[in-house]
Amino acid sequence: KLPDIIHNKVQAVVGVECPSEEEAAEHGKARAIGVVFSGGPAPGGHNVIAGIYDAAVKANPDTKVLGFLMGPDGVIENEYTVLTKEIVDNYRNLGGFGMIKTGRTKIDSVKKVSSARQTCKDLGLDALVIIGGDDSNTNAAFLAQELKDDGVQVIGVPKTIDGDIQVRDKSGNVLCAMSFGFHTAARAFATEISNLCTDASSDVKYWHICKVMGRVASHLALEVALQTHANLTLIGEELSEYVDYERIQKAEATGQTDYTAYGMTLRHLSRVICNGIVRRAAVGKNYGVMVIPEGVLEFINEIQTFIIKLNTIIADFNEMHDRPFHLEFQRLEEKLEYLRRLARRSREDDSFTLWNTRDDDLFSDLPIFFQEGLLMERDSHGNFPFSQVETDKVIMGLVQDYLAWLRDQGKYKVGLTRDYYEKTMKKGGADPQLYGPVLFRNYQDGEFLLMKEEIMSLKTLTQEMIRCNALKEGESIPSAVQAIYKKSIPSFKTQVHFYGYDGRGSDPTWFDCTYTYNLGLTVFSLIAAGATGQMAAIRNLERDFETWEPIGIPIGPLMHLEERKGKLTLVIEKSTVQLNSASFQVVKNLREKWLAAHPGPDEFRRPGPISMGDPRSEDRPITLALNALGSTPPEE
Amino acid sequence: KLPDIIHNKVQAVVGVECPSEEEAAEHGKARAIGVVFSGGPAPGGHNVIAGIYDAAVKANPDTKVLGFLMGPDGVIENEYTVLTKEIVDNYRNLGGFGMIKTGRTKIDSVKKVSSARQTCKDLGLDALVIIGGDDSNTNAAFLAQELKDDGVQVIGVPKTIDGDIQVRDKSGNVLCAMSFGFHTAARAFATEISNLCTDASSDVKYWHICKVMGRVASHLALEVALQTHANLTLIGEELSEYVDYERIQKAEATGQTDYTAYGMTLRHLSRVICNGIVRRAAVGKNYGVMVIPEGVLEFINEIQTFIIKLNTIIADFNEMHDRPFHLEFQRLEEKLEYLRRLARRSREDDSFTLWNTRDDDLFSDLPIFFQEGLLMERDSHGNFPFSQVETDKVIMGLVQDYLAWLRDQGKYKVGLTRDYYEKTMKKGGADPQLYGPVLFRNYQDGEFLLMKEEIMSLKTLTQEMIRCNALKEGESIPSAVQAIYKKSIPSFKTQVHFYGYDGRGSDPTWFDCTYTYNLGLTVFSLIAAGATGQMAAIRNLERDFETWEPIGIPIGPLMHLEERKGKLTLVIEKSTVQLNSASFQVVKNLREKWLAAHPGPDEFRRPGPISMGDPRSEDRPITLALNALGSTPPEE
Repeated sequence: KLPDIIHNKVQAVVGVECPSEEEAAEHGKARAIGVVFSGGPAPGGHNVIAGIYDAAVKANPDTKVLGFLMGPDGVIENEYTVLTKEIVDNYRNLGGFGMIKTGRTKIDSVKKVSSARQTCKDLGLDALVIIGGDDSNTNAAFLAQELKDDGVQVIGVPKTIDGDIQVRDKSGNVLCAMSFGFHTAARAFATEISNLCTDASSDVKYWHICKVMGRVASHLALEVALQTHANLTLIGEELSEYVDYERIQKAEATGQTDYTAYGMTLRHLSRVICNGIVRRAAVGKNYGVMVIPEGVLEFINEIQTFIIKLNTIIADFNEMHDRPFHLEFQRLEEKLEYLRRLARRSREDDSFTLWNTRDDDLFSDLPIFFQEGLLMERDSHGNFPFSQVETDKVIMGLVQDYLAWLRDQGKYKVGLTRDYYEKTMKKGGADPQLYGPVLFRNYQDGEFLLMKEEIMSLKTLTQEMIRCNALKEGESIPSAVQAIYKKSIPSFKTQVHFYGYDGRGSDPTWFDCTYTYNLGLTVFSLIAAGATGQMAAIRNLERDFETWEPIGIPIGPLMHLEERKGKLTLVIEKSTVQLNSASFQVVKNLREKWLAAHPGPDEFRRPGPISMGDPRSEDRPITLALNALGSTPPEE
Repeated sequence: KLPDIIHNKVQAVVGVECPSEEEAAEHGKARAIGVVFSGGPAPGGHNVIAGIYDAAVKANPDTKVLGFLMGPDGVIENEYTVLTKEIVDNYRNLGGFGMIKTGRTKIDSVKKVSSARQTCKDLGLDALVIIGGDDSNTNAAFLAQELKDDGVQVIGVPKTIDGDIQVRDKSGNVLCAMSFGFHTAARAFATEISNLCTDASSDVKYWHICKVMGRVASHLALEVALQTHANLTLIGEELSEYVDYERIQKAEATGQTDYTAYGMTLRHLSRVICNGIVRRAAVGKNYGVMVIPEGVLEFINEIQTFIIKLNTIIADFNEMHDRPFHLEFQRLEEKLEYLRRLARRSREDDSFTLWNTRDDDLFSDLPIFFQEGLLMERDSHGNFPFSQVETDKVIMGLVQDYLAWLRDQGKYKVGLTRDYYEKTMKKGGADPQLYGPVLFRNYQDGEFLLMKEEIMSLKTLTQEMIRCNALKEGESIPSAVQAIYKKSIPSFKTQVHFYGYDGRGSDPTWFDCTYTYNLGLTVFSLIAAGATGQMAAIRNLERDFETWEPIGIPIGPLMHLEERKGKLTLVIEKSTVQLNSASFQVVKNLREKWLAAHPGPDEFRRPGPISMGDPRSEDRPITLALNALGSTPPEE
């Protein structure tokens, strides 16, 4: 499909000491170059344009750089502005895409490609630069092919705050370690989440739940974890890679394979989260900060399985009956009852495995609104509207439910220091030694005293005291004991936050400023060298600036087939978090430390606000620096 | 109630050039001083303690400063830590209250006061410093009275990011212009909201709705407006002061007074907001940024009236019937039907005015969930749970409804430039001159072309074209005309944000650092001078540092009676935004400019992140600087 660009090679941009006359003429010829933003804003975009403009005008002052307005629509409709030094200078080092705006249109139909071609022809363009995400770079590759015969070069620039464009060559060497905008967005989120860490440990009453942008990959959550040392961070990729070995062994014993053993269930995830919450409470910290990637539900295999199973169930029903499923069962309760019937059938009929008791069980765990969502009528492609689901509500709903159960079981308690216990008792005229063994499960050796599980109310407290002969029937509980009891009962309060739009509108960090300006210079070099269908990139981003290597990466070979809206489509594969990467391994190894379910202060890190040229601010993303160490986990 | 402190005078803190031996001994005697945080964290709190510590230890190295832990509970329970230079140094200039944490307990019962007294006695305290909001300073005054005979001085320090502690003397001179933490919180919110301004004008698809903390006063929203020049900012105080003169005149004509003319209704407010949205869309800007104070609903008289009326209606019903209201009418629809019956009765019976047609009308305007909330069973005090209501949802629900109506009426359209129209038509082979007068209501003279109101669908477009002889029955609409039609149809997309917790956890600005450290020094001077029941403050905050004047403000006279939880209570009056203040007048006068419903770019201001010692960052809150100009509105 891309005959003229699929054989492109990685192209190093190198200076030529003594260029031939021909080379010099080619480099310095007057050109018309169009640039366009595509997709959501990312900090540094203006500097890409500044780099292109500076290099182009330096090579030939007659070169025109045209900025297409409002994204790809501007290319299709021939809406542009001629960029001048004044315009470019006004936006250098500034965030957003305000200079020429952006848009979401894809140039993906015959008609739109033909309009784009016409625009290039009308404007006499020599090159078109598309600054966008994976889809936009895919688009750039197809356009490069389409416009090849017109002599229009197309160059892509990898932009996305999500950080999911990362490229290695076949030998595994990193070509593009990170898209631009990622560092700034992560730093902006980290600044705000770090402020929440300060708030949490000052006010000691809230768990702050922070959802951060990133649907397909958890890079931003990972970087935020490294920047802030928040108490709990979910990494979607880890959840989908989880394997329940116990379940596998059980199945193996019967000679079967249990596919449900792969991937973490929502129920299991809520247990993991609650475990962290309960352990912190046990050392008196009934508060904290948790980071959730926006797209975490897409990593839960169980949900993907539900979607497939429910689609099949509904399709089967519609085939067998005159009335369609959604008409036959209009209320949620009716739909659930039908599912329960299927689960009963699976118990009686071994050959029926589409909806078993475990499915029914896990499904009924889900919050009502999410059950409704999963059982809603689908669009024509059968897609589930993930974007409408409030991820945090699904997960925190389960967490709330399980925590309530743990509280009822007496397993979720606030730990009290021995010192506090003894002082309170003495002040109330009660003997701590007498009541200690009655009240606490670990009175002998605990640093933080935990009330016995069976004491969950003033009533059970009375019963336990009577049982231990610390109270006589009809006597009232000493007020000091009551006070201690009250302190041991946690209330779970959350504040939910979403970090996305304000971070992507931030002014770029020094790293993103420099990176993007050099991407712009690289783009011009690629154009001057006659490249097309290439994506501009910088190698060695993780090292000193002197070692940075501008290159062109062939886009064609990056593509693979993927289902999009029910059709197989050629797209650039998104990079997800690699579980063997140094950055993930560090987060994994330090997870227990950052949870800080131990006496003493939390382990929060305070990155501080983004500040251009502040020597204290670290000079590049922490994940970038760590991943450069290689993919072998560092020794602890 | 406060015999020993009510006659306190404003107390200037002045140096004594040649102190007498007695004075020097008093100043330099060894003391034990307790400090405690009360209420939500505010940036700068640590510096208050640092100032107290430095001054106290300088006066006498043997003086002990004790930090009570977890807020007033620490005072009641005698939980404290002895502050050392190392501890204090660890927290200088840092945000939050992490050094000793905070809490919400009020020392307001006989029992709690007696525990607090005991703590002071046990520790041999000379003075207790309460760093908190209006309620905590009220508390400080009562404690000062209670502990007077024990020889324990109590000093308050005005803390609240909401900025609603402001004090003038009887002649109107400013004594305390602003509580600490306000500047930092406002700057933090402004940084993030300014990023949203950048995002909005890059991505051109969202209205960002930003709710900012501040329940009782809109100071933070006002400062954020001045910092960011967001397109629309609601100021609660303005809404409650609104007067509908037309309504008054109408009533006067019949010799009556129409009390419903005072205060803006929610319906009216939604019209005002929609008007701004529609006017921006008309110049092609179907996006923007809007700031809403968290407590805006508390300023809507209509809602206060609903609460009172509904309480009366329900009480009347319960008195007249055997079954209580909430049992008789369980579903919302039944309750609404009862209200409709009352409205009918009011039409037939002039003497029945409790629930009239207008009430019923305005009430049915409200979003369902808010109707339900207002008709819920109240707690024992009859209080409406405002804190559970999502302010933005109530207001944006009405805005969505009214915008949908405006769209149906053809009044909400995206304006197109003449240039864009003509080019699109020509490219599509259609004559712009021919179709212009058919499509647009202002084709003769509009800078931005607005589609006729009656054209709201492809069907009405066809009808209008046929009516104007631009299309024959059965012909299809030229594709260029269709494209133009599509561009003129707006979709209203919002993203909602809440700014609060992360801002109050920020590190303090230079202003808050300096202000709070000097508050700490002032506190010690007041203690050394024997004061009690005073609140530390700095005069001339708005002027150069050299002119700052440390003072003590008597807390007693600041108090007034207020209903709290159904009881009249003595509390410090909260300061709301004064509509004749320079800061409000500036926002009011520049409102039209900042709405930017005109061609050309928006008027956003970019404050940038908080940066200690950055000479570019303004040195104090803008409201503070403006209000120092006096309360006469400046000339335009």
